[in-house]
Amino acid sequence: MSQYRIFKVKDAIAYVREVVGMGDEVPLQGEEIGDGNLNQVFRVGEPGESYGFIVKQALPYIRCIGESWPLTRDRARIEAQILLRHGEVCPAHTVAVRHYDPALSVMLLEDLSDHRVWRQALLQDLRFPEAAAQLGKYLARVHYHSSAFHLDYQAQQAAKAEFANPELMAITEDVFFVDPFRDHERNNVEPLIRHEAEQLWANAALKINVARLKHDFRAKGEALLHGDLHTGSVMVAEGRLKVIDAEFGGYGPMGFDVGVMFANLLLNFCSQPGRHSPGVGQHYQQYRIEEVRTLWHSFRAEFVALAAHSNDPALAEPGYVQAFMRQVWRDALGYAGCEMIRRTIGIAHVADLDGIEEPTRRATCQRQALVLGRRLIMEAEQLNDTALELLLQQAIAGG
Amino acid sequence: MSQYRIFKVKDAIAYVREVVGMGDEVPLQGEEIGDGNLNQVFRVGEPGESYGFIVKQALPYIRCIGESWPLTRDRARIEAQILLRHGEVCPAHTVAVRHYDPALSVMLLEDLSDHRVWRQALLQDLRFPEAAAQLGKYLARVHYHSSAFHLDYQAQQAAKAEFANPELMAITEDVFFVDPFRDHERNNVEPLIRHEAEQLWANAALKINVARLKHDFRAKGEALLHGDLHTGSVMVAEGRLKVIDAEFGGYGPMGFDVGVMFANLLLNFCSQPGRHSPGVGQHYQQYRIEEVRTLWHSFRAEFVALAAHSNDPALAEPGYVQAFMRQVWRDALGYAGCEMIRRTIGIAHVADLDGIEEPTRRATCQRQALVLGRRLIMEAEQLNDTALELLLQQAIAGG
Repeated sequence: MSQYRIFKVKDAIAYVREVVGMGDEVPLQGEEIGDGNLNQVFRVGEPGESYGFIVKQALPYIRCIGESWPLTRDRARIEAQILLRHGEVCPAHTVAVRHYDPALSVMLLEDLSDHRVWRQALLQDLRFPEAAAQLGKYLARVHYHSSAFHLDYQAQQAAKAEFANPELMAITEDVFFVDPFRDHERNNVEPLIRHEAEQLWANAALKINVARLKHDFRAKGEALLHGDLHTGSVMVAEGRLKVIDAEFGGYGPMGFDVGVMFANLLLNFCSQPGRHSPGVGQHYQQYRIEEVRTLWHSFRAEFVALAAHSNDPALAEPGYVQAFMRQVWRDALGYAGCEMIRRTIGIAHVADLDGIEEPTRRATCQRQALVLGRRLIMEAEQLNDTALELLLQQAIAGG
Repeated sequence: MSQYRIFKVKDAIAYVREVVGMGDEVPLQGEEIGDGNLNQVFRVGEPGESYGFIVKQALPYIRCIGESWPLTRDRARIEAQILLRHGEVCPAHTVAVRHYDPALSVMLLEDLSDHRVWRQALLQDLRFPEAAAQLGKYLARVHYHSSAFHLDYQAQQAAKAEFANPELMAITEDVFFVDPFRDHERNNVEPLIRHEAEQLWANAALKINVARLKHDFRAKGEALLHGDLHTGSVMVAEGRLKVIDAEFGGYGPMGFDVGVMFANLLLNFCSQPGRHSPGVGQHYQQYRIEEVRTLWHSFRAEFVALAAHSNDPALAEPGYVQAFMRQVWRDALGYAGCEMIRRTIGIAHVADLDGIEEPTRRATCQRQALVLGRRLIMEAEQLNDTALELLLQQAIAGG
């Protein structure tokens, strides 16, 4: 069955039957559930059962655009291999890959139907108090085990070759670092914030910093990144968390993954000025600040603990991992700033901001996202974690 | 003739005959001329002719150690491809590869018999006033054309894969960043400076900086490096300069190549305290300071000029390349410091220092190399080019 064809529901069902060895006596039904931009996703299961299988297939083009934007199907191989590799070192928080068929560009994934997309949970103020710490642990584990702290030169070089992902990472370069910082037809700038976008495009100092971040995104092959770790790539349930959708992964700077996650929490932060959380009485935005803090502290603590067992005789020098963490923090703030800006005026927005119905209020929130994004990029060298929290508290007071 | 065997002189002659299509009617003679650590090198030519051919063959082990240290013959492929690639963008200063045979791990190189090894020229105070500027231009051209300023994501990714050189770059990691900074059996520490070596081994702040440099050597894939650019890898003649011996090359931080060359000029500087140049009257060491300055200015000017034509819409931002050059400078000082230390107490020394016969005088020079090396590593963030010159002038005054 392994000649490539674009799956319909019946193909997804047949694939599941074959892979899990399930005869026709077991009734299966399926539906397409994908809402992503790139691939098609089916859920297949027995009628009435709450768990089934997820079938994800890469198309030879970008799903939401169509055949006019072709894209390598090899991304399915890369995604499957990254998820498997990350799953080896952090099975608790990586979606399980049950099977992968390279010819069909299809994979069978564990069904996370009892989880929610974290972005949706945030928007509904459903709180998952362990999520930020779990994500920090996930990032530390997947980054550490693919880094020079853990792999010798040859093992890491082999991993860099295996996970080379030039087509998709080139897209990241464009949509992160290029388009949003100039007037480009791929951008999506709402009229009410056109003026603020033009101010960014004219900000030479900002663009020099963005150039550095772009250069380092490609040059700094520190760890095997997830590559697109926004809150829509994270599934949460009570006490549990799984990361999905790694097709943009590859070697890059650790601060990129960390920063993209910071940014998505902060985009949610910007989307809810003045909102109070029902029944708790605490300021809604305050939780996002705490999640950023918890994510960072969890990441750093786990990474430092792992690095204590590094076999690298130079990197094991006491004190080095702390210095390295400070550099990851600075990188993360810069990449967080890029993500906040590109998700506000670039091609791909977030529901947190775009879902605000009232245009003036939406524009106010978008402006705050742009201001915070710019400040994170410009002040990354100066802002330690306390200073960042102060800046966010000021944003609450001002907004 | 392409089954691998270790060449003797007659094989080198036969290889030349075949490759250049030269019949038995032309008399050829050959000799082994290699003095390097890794490979064997023959010169083949007609009797009485001043130009011939160079035949360089990789052995399946390290030549100066023997079969007990096996080493991939694939280094010959990598070297040939790097020289060819560098030769495309800087033919004036890259040794020409006439032919390469992958099965034999052998290549035919242009004969540079009318050139001198720069290290020997420096030791004899033979001055080649254009050499430093030529080297700066060479480095700028080979680095620029393999960098993100010039190559898009996919082209650079392909180059990173083609030039992956894990076996030899892992050796660099060990002999540069690991062994010299601890008491290791591979080190070669003269008794008179044992105390100073032990001080370095106990210097935690220094070792944290060295850990960062080691980490970045592997992680920062900025450009296709030469990888071992000491003054013994540079052939000079009046007005001409050619770089040879690229088997340690691969993607890495630009500052590594620049810094290694700085260090080799400064090791020569350290080897000649108080020496005056005959017939010129100017202080011998002063020339080395000027060469470091000229090399850097030449590199930076050429790189900035090339970057003005970058097609990368983000990296072309006015002002970015200057900021990038400041980072390369800082990296270069750090790597220069490592090279100075490892060439003084590590496995592979330089003739500049080891050739000093009087032990006390040699130890004094070695101590200065260690002090300068340590200061370059520790002060790389603060030292601009003026401050570096001041530091070197102080070294002259103090030495």
